[in-house]
Amino acid sequence: MARRIRFTAFQMNAASHQAPGLWRHERDGSQRYAQAGHWLELARLLERGCFDAVLFADVLGANDVYAGSPEAALRHGVQIPVNDPLALVPLMAQATRHLGFGVTCALAYEHPYLFARRMSTLDHLSQGRVGWNIATRCFDSADRNLGLARPPAPEERFELAEEYLEVVYKLWEASWEDDAVRRDRQGGVYTDPAKVHAIGHRGRYFDVPGIHLCEPSPQRTPLLLAQAGTSPRAARFAAQHAEGIFLSGPSIAVVRRLVEQVRQCLSAAGRAREDVLIYTQALIITAPTSAEAQAKHMELLRHVDVEGALALLSGWTGIDFSRHPRNTPIEQVDTNAGRTALAAFSHAEPARRWTVGEAARFIGLGGRGPVIVGSPQQVADQLQQWADSTGIDGFNLSYALAHETMQDVVDLVVPELQQRGRYATGYAEGTLRDKLFGRGPRLPASHIGRQVKLGQTAPELPVSPRTGAENTV
Amino acid sequence: MARRIRFTAFQMNAASHQAPGLWRHERDGSQRYAQAGHWLELARLLERGCFDAVLFADVLGANDVYAGSPEAALRHGVQIPVNDPLALVPLMAQATRHLGFGVTCALAYEHPYLFARRMSTLDHLSQGRVGWNIATRCFDSADRNLGLARPPAPEERFELAEEYLEVVYKLWEASWEDDAVRRDRQGGVYTDPAKVHAIGHRGRYFDVPGIHLCEPSPQRTPLLLAQAGTSPRAARFAAQHAEGIFLSGPSIAVVRRLVEQVRQCLSAAGRAREDVLIYTQALIITAPTSAEAQAKHMELLRHVDVEGALALLSGWTGIDFSRHPRNTPIEQVDTNAGRTALAAFSHAEPARRWTVGEAARFIGLGGRGPVIVGSPQQVADQLQQWADSTGIDGFNLSYALAHETMQDVVDLVVPELQQRGRYATGYAEGTLRDKLFGRGPRLPASHIGRQVKLGQTAPELPVSPRTGAENTV
Repeated sequence: MARRIRFTAFQMNAASHQAPGLWRHERDGSQRYAQAGHWLELARLLERGCFDAVLFADVLGANDVYAGSPEAALRHGVQIPVNDPLALVPLMAQATRHLGFGVTCALAYEHPYLFARRMSTLDHLSQGRVGWNIATRCFDSADRNLGLARPPAPEERFELAEEYLEVVYKLWEASWEDDAVRRDRQGGVYTDPAKVHAIGHRGRYFDVPGIHLCEPSPQRTPLLLAQAGTSPRAARFAAQHAEGIFLSGPSIAVVRRLVEQVRQCLSAAGRAREDVLIYTQALIITAPTSAEAQAKHMELLRHVDVEGALALLSGWTGIDFSRHPRNTPIEQVDTNAGRTALAAFSHAEPARRWTVGEAARFIGLGGRGPVIVGSPQQVADQLQQWADSTGIDGFNLSYALAHETMQDVVDLVVPELQQRGRYATGYAEGTLRDKLFGRGPRLPASHIGRQVKLGQTAPELPVSPRTGAENTV
Repeated sequence: MARRIRFTAFQMNAASHQAPGLWRHERDGSQRYAQAGHWLELARLLERGCFDAVLFADVLGANDVYAGSPEAALRHGVQIPVNDPLALVPLMAQATRHLGFGVTCALAYEHPYLFARRMSTLDHLSQGRVGWNIATRCFDSADRNLGLARPPAPEERFELAEEYLEVVYKLWEASWEDDAVRRDRQGGVYTDPAKVHAIGHRGRYFDVPGIHLCEPSPQRTPLLLAQAGTSPRAARFAAQHAEGIFLSGPSIAVVRRLVEQVRQCLSAAGRAREDVLIYTQALIITAPTSAEAQAKHMELLRHVDVEGALALLSGWTGIDFSRHPRNTPIEQVDTNAGRTALAAFSHAEPARRWTVGEAARFIGLGGRGPVIVGSPQQVADQLQQWADSTGIDGFNLSYALAHETMQDVVDLVVPELQQRGRYATGYAEGTLRDKLFGRGPRLPASHIGRQVKLGQTAPELPVSPRTGAENTV
């Protein structure tokens, strides 16, 4: 039986995400990003379409690589203003029963003890439907404003990330035993102190001696997500920890190669391919007929904002594209920083020489992924071809217009895939991890997060707690 | 005309708040604290009762002063487990139109740049109904787990707090001009970069050179709340910044004196009494008849958990009450740390010599405030007497049983006060600040938060942003 195709929705709590300029379209609703209703509608829509989850991108700084200033980003609404995505989870969870929520949080900026409680709370309130897209850092401008005068070197960044994960794993997985909370009204025991353990963590970056503040949430550790990573170290990190891996490439050939790399990294980390779901980014533009879909594509392309796209591309690559005339071939943009990001274009159409302006227009609609255009049947054909040729599990769908793009997918493409037996017609019960893997709510026993050992120095809590004579007055 | 009496609800995203042991009562619903439904019900109830706001207490550490371990707190469910209160705001805001949300956040543990975005987001999502109860720090155990090996001395703590506020005021009040966001579809301008200012903050504790990440939210600065403070420095801090001040005392005489102190501090800070609303803590136990109310009080008292109450009191005072026999007169508990907290008891009933055990039972139902027991008429009489004799604006109501205590207040006491013309029968339109003060959504022009000046070193953004020729493709 051909494998099922999965969808996640790629979003951002911001004025615009990966379609710079599309906010100017009269049918775009993203101007409502700061209102609850905007997100409640999306949540209900995605659940109707049996999406696995919504994945929230995030940045903690203004994108100011282009011309060395946030001016272009501000002017063109490129991922600024940007609100906190975490606040959307309780809201959207309340409006749904099954949809998952992946939230990007960069660990460089918040202490793990505080972050662990934040995620446990969201996992409780969403009944086990939260995921964490683990980022190690954000823009330089985030570092500057968040007190990291000297951001750590890449290798050190991952050392810190590994220790950060060790701390939160200890808090989530090992501090409270499953049956620690008793809520025994007769016996007067809320929590059995003998079953709550101080983690005794002493490390290079963090000392966290105490207990987790929250009782175990449905998933304990949120579903762990990561980008496939553009460096070998980042790829190793993702393969070690992630249960969902997101990647992007403009062509089947590029994505096939990326999936192969993920496979190798997983194997090196002692994990099986089926321990992880892989989603590749795509933008779907569809309409009842092929001609209508093509017309819609052309109309949307006319709204792409090239300067906004260059600001976005500058932020991604660290290259200031304001310094390069738009007819410059991108392989002449002489820098190492963006080599990997730019190389993708040459693979999209190997025969073509991309200019800076063309690259901007390319990423201006759909970011680093392909734009899949056509009637529902044509789109389904292409999705199947992508899935079957690359080995991915699903697509992380960006949008051109909020929420029209997602509505078209839900109303037109999902039913077509369902008819072909290639898409879910409902959700499994349970937590997000249950729904995706069907192996229970918790991290698998073999996962690195389950291997943590509590510190030797942790003071053991007394085994038999006292009961004062005056305990009940 | 006699002044209106106001209510806020004092809550915590935790197993129990200020009624240790009451979770064992069969009618208590607080065991559902980790479920969204628990809070949605409360939100709707409080709005039906025209409460100004719900005030969320918070701690970021386990209370481990009692016997030097979190054991008693865990066993008796004393404010642990404890989830993040911020996550409740979007949820409860969605279920209501008017209710305000005050959230306690201790500024010692999160960078102001990150925190500013978090609050702006909540202010957006709640349409301007969020308040910040400014705490400077939490327990020693929070410091230990959050990487503050040497917590700052009290005076330095307030210096840091003042600078923290300066940073967030700059971000909230001065970074984005009112008309910076244009969303001009025709002109292609989302935000006018000339109207967004880098704050250029360079201080002793924080360097924040950049712009705020969020566009102005309805209130910009959330409604500012604070405890009256137990030290002169804390009192000065509250009087300088707060728009809502919370205090607690067991008797009219004590509260009258505390209000007088607030008055003096406000005056010293150049602020008027009417710039601030003062709420004093109370627990109301009511039923249709006086006899039923008295019986309910006795029944609730029987559920107080004295060891839990001593753990709570230990956390508040820093005194380890496990070391003192319960018949010790509290004035013999020889330490300076808790002098102020303990002194309150001697004022409650001046002729009485309180023992440790009696003090525990006292705070075990209703914390540091009075328990007001009686029929709706009797309760209304007492509330009027308190309000008219002390000069407070309202009561911050704790609960014995969730949500029965609040339901009794809403169903029985609110209508009685409304009949007497002493309680609101509806809400004003607008933001929380509008509703409370009727002077617009923003901090008053005279408030310290409006006086911030952006750093001289802030790079000015170019006044006339470029429009590239290829701006619209």
